[in-house]
Amino acid sequence: MTSHAIPPVALSHDVKLDRLGEIAVKVGLGLAPGQELVMTAPFDALPLVRRITEHAYRAGASLVTTLFADEETTLARYRFAPDGAFDVASGWLYDGMASAFKAGAARLAIAGENPSLLAGQDPDRVSRANRARSKAYMPALELIAGFATNWTIVSYASPSWARAMFPDDPEDIAVARLWHAIFAASRVDGPDPVAAWTEHNAELQRRTALLNASRFAALHFRGPGTDLTVGLADDHEWNGGSTTAGNGLVCNANIPTEEVFTTPHKFRVDGRVRSTKPLSYNGTLIEDIAVKFEAGAIVDAQARTGQDVLLKVLETDEGSRRLGEVALVPFSSPISQSGLLFYNTLYDENAASHIALGQSYSKCIQNGVSRPKDELVTRGANDSLIHIDWMIGSGEVDVDGLRADGSAEPLMRKGDWVS
Amino acid sequence: MTSHAIPPVALSHDVKLDRLGEIAVKVGLGLAPGQELVMTAPFDALPLVRRITEHAYRAGASLVTTLFADEETTLARYRFAPDGAFDVASGWLYDGMASAFKAGAARLAIAGENPSLLAGQDPDRVSRANRARSKAYMPALELIAGFATNWTIVSYASPSWARAMFPDDPEDIAVARLWHAIFAASRVDGPDPVAAWTEHNAELQRRTALLNASRFAALHFRGPGTDLTVGLADDHEWNGGSTTAGNGLVCNANIPTEEVFTTPHKFRVDGRVRSTKPLSYNGTLIEDIAVKFEAGAIVDAQARTGQDVLLKVLETDEGSRRLGEVALVPFSSPISQSGLLFYNTLYDENAASHIALGQSYSKCIQNGVSRPKDELVTRGANDSLIHIDWMIGSGEVDVDGLRADGSAEPLMRKGDWVS
Ligand SMILES: [Zn+2]
Ligand SMILES: [Zn+2]
Ligand SMILES: [Zn+2]
Ligand SMILES: [Zn+2]
Repeated sequence: MTSHAIPPVALSHDVKLDRLGEIAVKVGLGLAPGQELVMTAPFDALPLVRRITEHAYRAGASLVTTLFADEETTLARYRFAPDGAFDVASGWLYDGMASAFKAGAARLAIAGENPSLLAGQDPDRVSRANRARSKAYMPALELIAGFATNWTIVSYASPSWARAMFPDDPEDIAVARLWHAIFAASRVDGPDPVAAWTEHNAELQRRTALLNASRFAALHFRGPGTDLTVGLADDHEWNGGSTTAGNGLVCNANIPTEEVFTTPHKFRVDGRVRSTKPLSYNGTLIEDIAVKFEAGAIVDAQARTGQDVLLKVLETDEGSRRLGEVALVPFSSPISQSGLLFYNTLYDENAASHIALGQSYSKCIQNGVSRPKDELVTRGANDSLIHIDWMIGSGEVDVDGLRADGSAEPLMRKGDWVS
Repeated sequence: MTSHAIPPVALSHDVKLDRLGEIAVKVGLGLAPGQELVMTAPFDALPLVRRITEHAYRAGASLVTTLFADEETTLARYRFAPDGAFDVASGWLYDGMASAFKAGAARLAIAGENPSLLAGQDPDRVSRANRARSKAYMPALELIAGFATNWTIVSYASPSWARAMFPDDPEDIAVARLWHAIFAASRVDGPDPVAAWTEHNAELQRRTALLNASRFAALHFRGPGTDLTVGLADDHEWNGGSTTAGNGLVCNANIPTEEVFTTPHKFRVDGRVRSTKPLSYNGTLIEDIAVKFEAGAIVDAQARTGQDVLLKVLETDEGSRRLGEVALVPFSSPISQSGLLFYNTLYDENAASHIALGQSYSKCIQNGVSRPKDELVTRGANDSLIHIDWMIGSGEVDVDGLRADGSAEPLMRKGDWVS
């Protein structure tokens, strides 16, 4: 007797890249026929830009416009521009993007930057340039953060990113390893990627429904160097997986995504917390962050590397030393289990529970997208030019949900969901 | 006795490319310290973008932003987008560019497109897309055409352009031949490129001074298939070489440039004219154009190839069948003598006398930049969404200047200046 099992056929790189383009358009954006698409991409990401563009047009896009960024020209500014240059940003372009979103365009970002591109540049210049850009980008970011339109971020294994992750491998091996991780985390290497995403979204929604039903007053994180109580905003809402944007379209804003997240109360965060993964912030690596919160604000901050950039970030504005997001990610999630450090928020924030300094998401308050801004603020939502996620979860961190009466419910033990 | 002559040292490609970047910034733009620069470029032109970016920052630019265009994604729209897509343009981006120019940014375009990219696409779609883009680009184009800011166009030998020019050569040879022509025409291969441009600008300005002093009422072109009288606008002004933009900066809008040009009177063009070189218009090749003018308007138009696109172009608006520019270029000019057909207006218009359908340049009327628009119109200036140059000069074409009293002065014989 013989059995004729069909051997699994390994998918070629080109097929997986095409599937990533398809998932970006169908699951990431949920692009509607007739929509314009505005895409930003590293220069190297052209092959994925082309796959996404084709899938977008096949899905009925009217026009796809891609804004490419070349890292050498970014560096050229630090090398050759006069010092006064670093307070200038391309507001005309960001305002144009905001107009496009208001007029109904979808937005797709391809991540894949060199995580330490700006290492070695003057931190004061880096911080001034970041600040100028954040300020100029604010009108567009508000539309994005408020999900006025459907948007997503996917990623591309650019050589500079891969080299940073796998410094001991030859470049082609490093790129192949990073692609392997991206394709797996983006769920494009199984038999039916769209179905896999449908299932994953359902699981994340089950989790957010449980948390929303619990209506915890706060979360309590405990681990090495960490004893932190994060009060949740009044009327906070947990989100995860897909989102229905203001234009009615269902998008997955991050591909991959493993997190469920909500809005902390800007005045109700207390205690000490230590980062569990390095943070790559606009080209600077910030490692081993240790901060102390009092009544929602960071009152002491240290980092083993990048401390000068971190301290400048905290001075950005009123809201930059307060939290705008708290997110739970199980230690057993696939990105975490890959054991890789991506130096990229899109991946690292989906490998560990995290908090974000700065701007909160209005959709993480009940009916927040349609409520006036001052109502969100009185409920504890934070306002800032920045939104910077950093990782505080690991296999050594426990999380409890605290009820208004002070009682505690175990949520995570050794980094994983209790139930 | 021996003589120790110093042999000429051949410059490397990299040195010439760097010099082209330097000429683009110093001669083309005349960039001022603190200016922003907005650059558009074919995707392939990255090496030149990097050279220009470095020279711009060295010259004190505050921020250089480059918008890259990838030809494959342009084609993807024609292949995969729904039919309704072709009336849409990225107005948000063009409006953003207009804002940047108003706020003082300089503008640099790198030309190098595949001249027949859209050959074989539905002419109706091509024309609708061109029309939508022209309309959306109008606010930015008006600032450019009115020299509200300093701007320039330079070129890059992209493989698709080189293949179109040299279809019988292997691609690397074709690219090398095109670079040879670009470097020569852009005057970067001599001992002192900036000095060469100073001298060339002085010669063009000597020519425009003579023509402005003559105050001809019309030009008369005679050659095979051509007997055309082009009335000149009242208060017309001849321009050539460098221009002082509205912001006070001196730029060379075209690198290379060999032409002197002015504004025809929109109602005073009569006779027949035949094109002497193919015209590449947004990816369509239009060859052997033959048209008849009456009282300024084209009343009959034919072309051996691309006639359908030509006829649609003429229907763009009121001004699209009237002239906005007439330009004189000697047959002995270096680009003409190269004997090459570039399928690119920047080069081919500088190899032959030409006329342009559509929008006129306000600086080609005396004090035109500061005069209200209706004053320009009453003097004969034309208005249109389009500005399309096509070549009517050759070694067989004579040009006379006609005075108001009907007397004629020979200007060109067999395509060259009489004096
Ligand atoms: Zn998050
Ligand atoms: Zn976040
Ligand atoms: Zn011209
Ligand atoms: Zn012209």
